Amino acid sequence: MISTPLPTDGARIHEITAGIDIFSPEEIQCVDELWQETQAQGPERSGYHWLVERGEDGQVLGYTCYGPRALTSGTFDLFWIAVDTRLQRGGVGRRLLAATEEEIRKLGGRLLFVETSGLPKYEPTRQFYLGMGYTWEAAIKDFYTEGDDLVIFTKHL
Amino acid sequence: MISTPLPTDGARIHEITAGIDIFSPEEIQCVDELWQETQAQGPERSGYHWLVERGEDGQVLGYTCYGPRALTSGTFDLFWIAVDTRLQRGGVGRRLLAATEEEIRKLGGRLLFVETSGLPKYEPTRQFYLGMGYTWEAAIKDFYTEGDDLVIFTKHL
Repeated sequence: MISTPLPTDGARIHEITAGIDIFSPEEIQCVDELWQETQAQGPERSGYHWLVERGEDGQVLGYTCYGPRALTSGTFDLFWIAVDTRLQRGGVGRRLLAATEEEIRKLGGRLLFVETSGLPKYEPTRQFYLGMGYTWEAAIKDFYTEGDDLVIFTKHL
Repeated sequence: MISTPLPTDGARIHEITAGIDIFSPEEIQCVDELWQETQAQGPERSGYHWLVERGEDGQVLGYTCYGPRALTSGTFDLFWIAVDTRLQRGGVGRRLLAATEEEIRKLGGRLLFVETSGLPKYEPTRQFYLGMGYTWEAAIKDFYTEGDDLVIFTKHL
């Protein structure tokens, strides 16, 4: 079942993030900071919205974090999407992203903007976005660091 | 002469921004907010760095605002560049952007990332970046709003 997270879900969201080996320590810390800012200020003021999928026992299996891009009218960023590594390729990510697109539409969003890495280890991630109907817009060479390109995907909702 | 601004330059920076008719009220307010955040926290903590060019009488003629992109190593965003409308095409923008690139290099930057609009009224802006050696990386349709595309330029420093 997909819903907004409870305040007590922070530890599990951290655990899922920290379990994904393609995320760097800085990226794991960034997710924690976005979570804390959302808890302190709420989704509207912080600009960070979250969805989680729970299993039948209530445990969080994965999450998304997204929000409106400043100075645009109806463009949203997908900041994070992560699924428990033991459940990857099981449909949790697809359901979470589809639900996120639907929530963004309800918030008046027209366009979802996704940034990811061009590294070989992100190939399944890039295939995931292409499979979900996203358009590969650009690759910016050496964006994250030397040899690690930015790839931009978008989807008009 | 190009230097970092004084705290008292805020009113003049606002005046220059507000005098540029292609900037929306939201964009003018955004510059004010970045300025206030920089004054409150300093460049390092806020992540916003500024340069101004002054005329012989000391008056600020234009400015840039730039800073490191989170989760990258050496990529900087150019958040704003603006020149007093009465002085545009006089070289102030070119000097400010070249000095900004130099400051970013000193801060360890490798890549400067610029977002601008695809609207016809931004054609001189786009030509300015191309003339300064920037690469047109992508145009994202309807990014700012319906009919107003995002254009991304980069320069490897």
